[in-house]
Amino acid sequence: MRPGAPLTRLFAPRAVAVVGASRDPDKVGYRVVENLLKGGFEGAIYPINPTATEILGRRVYPSLSDIGAPVDLAVIVLPAPRVLPALETCAAQGIGAAIVISAGFKEVGGKGAELEAALKKRVRELGIRVLGPNCLGLIVTDAKLNATFAKDMPPSGGIAFVSQSGALCTAALDWAVGLGIGFSALVSVGNKADLSEAEIIEVLADDPKTRVIVGYLEAVEDGQRFLAVVEKASRKKPVVFFKAGTTEGGARAASSHTGALAGADRAYEAAFKQAGVIRARSLHELFDFARVFASLPLPRGNRIAIVTNAGGPGIVAADACEGGALQLAALSESTVTALKRVLPSTASLHNPVDVIGDATAERYQAALEAVVADPGVDGVLALATPQAMTNLEKFAHAVVEVGSGARKPVLAVFMAEASLKEANRILLRGGIPDFPFPDEAVKALDAMVRHAAGRGRAPLPDRLPADRAGVAILVKRAFDRGVITLGEAEAREVIAAYGFRGPKSVRASSASEASDAAGRIGYPVVLKIVSPQILHKSDVGGVRVGLASKEAIHEAYAQMVARAETAAPHARIEGVLVQEQVTGGREVILGMARDPQFGPLLMFGLGGIYVEALKDVTFRIAPLARAEAEAMIREVRAFPILQGVRGEAPADVAALVEDILRLSQLVTDFPEIAEIDINPLFVKPEGEGTVALDARIRLARNGDPSS
Amino acid sequence: MRPGAPLTRLFAPRAVAVVGASRDPDKVGYRVVENLLKGGFEGAIYPINPTATEILGRRVYPSLSDIGAPVDLAVIVLPAPRVLPALETCAAQGIGAAIVISAGFKEVGGKGAELEAALKKRVRELGIRVLGPNCLGLIVTDAKLNATFAKDMPPSGGIAFVSQSGALCTAALDWAVGLGIGFSALVSVGNKADLSEAEIIEVLADDPKTRVIVGYLEAVEDGQRFLAVVEKASRKKPVVFFKAGTTEGGARAASSHTGALAGADRAYEAAFKQAGVIRARSLHELFDFARVFASLPLPRGNRIAIVTNAGGPGIVAADACEGGALQLAALSESTVTALKRVLPSTASLHNPVDVIGDATAERYQAALEAVVADPGVDGVLALATPQAMTNLEKFAHAVVEVGSGARKPVLAVFMAEASLKEANRILLRGGIPDFPFPDEAVKALDAMVRHAAGRGRAPLPDRLPADRAGVAILVKRAFDRGVITLGEAEAREVIAAYGFRGPKSVRASSASEASDAAGRIGYPVVLKIVSPQILHKSDVGGVRVGLASKEAIHEAYAQMVARAETAAPHARIEGVLVQEQVTGGREVILGMARDPQFGPLLMFGLGGIYVEALKDVTFRIAPLARAEAEAMIREVRAFPILQGVRGEAPADVAALVEDILRLSQLVTDFPEIAEIDINPLFVKPEGEGTVALDARIRLARNGDPSS
Repeated sequence: MRPGAPLTRLFAPRAVAVVGASRDPDKVGYRVVENLLKGGFEGAIYPINPTATEILGRRVYPSLSDIGAPVDLAVIVLPAPRVLPALETCAAQGIGAAIVISAGFKEVGGKGAELEAALKKRVRELGIRVLGPNCLGLIVTDAKLNATFAKDMPPSGGIAFVSQSGALCTAALDWAVGLGIGFSALVSVGNKADLSEAEIIEVLADDPKTRVIVGYLEAVEDGQRFLAVVEKASRKKPVVFFKAGTTEGGARAASSHTGALAGADRAYEAAFKQAGVIRARSLHELFDFARVFASLPLPRGNRIAIVTNAGGPGIVAADACEGGALQLAALSESTVTALKRVLPSTASLHNPVDVIGDATAERYQAALEAVVADPGVDGVLALATPQAMTNLEKFAHAVVEVGSGARKPVLAVFMAEASLKEANRILLRGGIPDFPFPDEAVKALDAMVRHAAGRGRAPLPDRLPADRAGVAILVKRAFDRGVITLGEAEAREVIAAYGFRGPKSVRASSASEASDAAGRIGYPVVLKIVSPQILHKSDVGGVRVGLASKEAIHEAYAQMVARAETAAPHARIEGVLVQEQVTGGREVILGMARDPQFGPLLMFGLGGIYVEALKDVTFRIAPLARAEAEAMIREVRAFPILQGVRGEAPADVAALVEDILRLSQLVTDFPEIAEIDINPLFVKPEGEGTVALDARIRLARNGDPSS
Repeated sequence: MRPGAPLTRLFAPRAVAVVGASRDPDKVGYRVVENLLKGGFEGAIYPINPTATEILGRRVYPSLSDIGAPVDLAVIVLPAPRVLPALETCAAQGIGAAIVISAGFKEVGGKGAELEAALKKRVRELGIRVLGPNCLGLIVTDAKLNATFAKDMPPSGGIAFVSQSGALCTAALDWAVGLGIGFSALVSVGNKADLSEAEIIEVLADDPKTRVIVGYLEAVEDGQRFLAVVEKASRKKPVVFFKAGTTEGGARAASSHTGALAGADRAYEAAFKQAGVIRARSLHELFDFARVFASLPLPRGNRIAIVTNAGGPGIVAADACEGGALQLAALSESTVTALKRVLPSTASLHNPVDVIGDATAERYQAALEAVVADPGVDGVLALATPQAMTNLEKFAHAVVEVGSGARKPVLAVFMAEASLKEANRILLRGGIPDFPFPDEAVKALDAMVRHAAGRGRAPLPDRLPADRAGVAILVKRAFDRGVITLGEAEAREVIAAYGFRGPKSVRASSASEASDAAGRIGYPVVLKIVSPQILHKSDVGGVRVGLASKEAIHEAYAQMVARAETAAPHARIEGVLVQEQVTGGREVILGMARDPQFGPLLMFGLGGIYVEALKDVTFRIAPLARAEAEAMIREVRAFPILQGVRGEAPADVAALVEDILRLSQLVTDFPEIAEIDINPLFVKPEGEGTVALDARIRLARNGDPSS
């Protein structure tokens, strides 16, 4: 860790005190001291215990104030009620950082939750930075710091692991020690009373020893902060997360389509995409991705070559490449010529290159060399099966020989078990990640390609011209009147202020005003009843479409008002809206609902059945980059419909992208907008723009979605 | 293997000859003899070599005819051109089965393919059964038969592995030996010149030592045969397949929607579903599924309990359960009471049961016992992480203690590596499959639940009443006239003969005939031009809908004929079809295209955009069971639309099921039907049936789809 960086006292302390150190080897307070010693920490270690004098040969101090020398970090292993007093003492002694390993806080509820709330508040006042409580602790291999009660210290390496589960930390450690995988840091964030993963990731992003940041996440607290920090970090190095708890905890109460469809995992999915986080779908993937990013150069493109000593596994690997971002490289003519020189006549000279089951390690290596040298190849899978004549150890040396110096990633897939032990060690020492099955190696490579391709992510777009003050007045007026759900007319005024074009539309308070308006707009027109009390106009016969003449308007007006008065006797009818009838476009829906962690969650989908029955929608968190708006549109399954099917003209997707950015800005400017549906939004053919036919907005004071 | 079973001479030979035995340890002909000896084969072993006298201490015979004793099986390791003569000798000597290990046949093309074609033909004439050529050979552990040139013999156990790739066999062997996983048989089918996986599976289905049949498949030859055999086998024991080569080799030329959408993998996917095959999506899954089926009892239901010593992994496992067929069990009150007695107050007594990180093996075992005893639990995941106080060996003993005698599956998920070696061995010896990650164990358990639930699969439905003879006449007439694509009228006659209801419809050759017909049918009606030369009626203005009066019909008739004569001057116009205008239903498409391997591949999807743009369709192979027809309908993503959205009435799905069965029978009865689209088929509201509005049929002589 860099000396000047934030949280240096936590990550690179010069002296550590263990508050609650114990002489009993079964106690956590003993384990922590033991680990600090075993890890080889070179700074001072001060065990604190009022009744002991020596632990593991170290002098014990009765209290922090007895040390008489500067301490950077306190590791606290006291019972929960004694933690806060200890932190007070830390602050008084000028100790800037603490790790609270003790459990018995929020996770047990009741009294524990109260203790944690008090700790959280006081810690902010004291200015001391705290990791935990209820955590395993912290390991920083470069600083030889093992401030945990875990069994092991992992080898030094490029992986930083941040985990909300202490048990996952112990599992990761055991895995690292067992397989010899190197870590730069292991951070158990516990209950995150003070330090959250966001701040930890900020530090790790600047840590030169960390090549990849890997995390296990159950929930984030401040989603927007997380997004901002991780977005920055993922430009510097790959960030891989596994998110637990993806299952929905039941539908939320929501008054919009967007609100009803915006489940918690949708928000995480959107956030991970926007932040450039590589989402591991399983813990297995998490560790696989960690290994490749830690040890291999990033691929420059997605063209993958496969070298194998057997046909079947080559097919399986090639199949796996087709699913994701990868494609099979077409080998250059000179590569094929080189392969022809070194391979027998029955070998396959094209990708997958099959060196045949009787291949020696020399032949295998020659093929690998030819393929790695091909400038049209961005990454290589070295497959091997233990055939009768195969010496896997020699094969492993061949892969290391070629792969360890290469400027592109070379991954080994050695499909064996009994014959593999020594080959495994050779590959590990040579820095080549190996996999038992081709599809797993392919997934890891796919993650690398996606990360490498996404690093130059687009910045947020410039502010769009918008009448922010006008909307502020509308919102204020609505609150003043005690109105929470805006009527159609007002909702359309709001979105119009941000550049959404609505249908040409004129208000009229009599039939003849209406027909005059229709004359100016152009026939046919739509008539809609205007009443602040009537939200679902169709239910009271308050919408008539396709009115093509003056007479039709007069008749419709009279009918509509009469029916509305019958159906909603208490409604104040203010007249009608005469609207241009929009034809020749595709109906889509744009919406936003506020997520408790991430804030404004934008939704896009095709209208009607696609949203309601098929739930074919996609999400992002506002504000978003233009490229993300484009991706939202492409991601829905029904996207081909916008491109034009059955000979229809493609829809104006460019205009739709602008609309998403408009909506993003509107909901970013106004946290008072709790939910919004722009539905339907008519996307006309290319070059003709969009028309927002209807909108609904629900407001909430202070941006609180539940108010 | 049972003595009386087919292929007994192959699977349980009393004496084996090795034709092409060699003294050179680097030769396959040496390896095979060595493996037979090392495997402990108790029958006679006769190495055949004209120039040697002794190999590995065994007497060598110059030729098969010199043995002078009965031989059941010959293993042939000669160069390709000498294989067929050797098989002739085998047949002459009464040797009933041979394994041809030799390569140089179909897989090298040209001369080799010719050799294989000749071998294939001659072998059928000789009546000798042949495994291979180009294969690794055969292992039957119960018979102590290792007739391969592989390095190892696996331990004896319940897994039978059938593979089209020899390299996958060696990988599986290495895996089995390395992890101590037991196999009953390992069959490398090679080029399948004679014996295919279907016949092998038939044998293994009746083999009492085989508990699960596991296969690696690249392509089947006779799909219908495969389907029939595997369907039977999977009722007896689980059949798990991994299919390589899922990527499409480019679109096929097809004249129907169904043909265009019916890719090769769609046929395999359908066949696997119908045959009750558990499809492994990766080789990793293949081996995982093999392990659990081989060693655990099947679950009686899908209610899963999780016992863990850490919260995070418990959440991950619970998440994973939500995806597939599994659900989290609700523990009974008495189980919760029992747990309360043995667990500390901070433990979670509900599923996932968290015994807390400081748990001893005794506490963990007590919790496992309580959960396994709960009659509301069908399967159990025993999770453990290596926490500071955890002794994984003792945990492993606890799981074995509880799980090995249980009548429900207990799987271990020990998330560790360094601490795991000995725990692994304990679990393996105790018959408990263990996994490094919860989601992998969950997938394996999910496969068990799906298999257990699907074993009582429905038989094919009885024959539906149909005018088969009528269709035969129509088909013959079409061929006689040289017609390959049936016109709408004829196509509708064909499907009507199998019970499809069309719109009420009358042919008319004048405007007044047409209006008379409309009077009988009831207004409004549809008018369609009738001409054998006009296939796309709309293109020439040959369809008019919504005709609600006599006048409208007269006008439309005149216009239609005039426009058709202009647009298609050489078409013979025979009049018009007056049709009932069907309203109030959902458009779907039913279709069939012939797959080269599996034959009639039925397709179902919602019409229009759902088929064309979204490709939201599903497939099965005809003939199919009623339950499969029902599953087809439920599988499409747009299924909610048939159930009724936006307040619409649910569609008559029961009638749609009948229609799928009708189509199944039609295409089974008439292999001459190469492709058929019934599109649109109108599914009216529940109880009102379906109406087939249009159909297109392409015929082919001899059922050859490409003719």
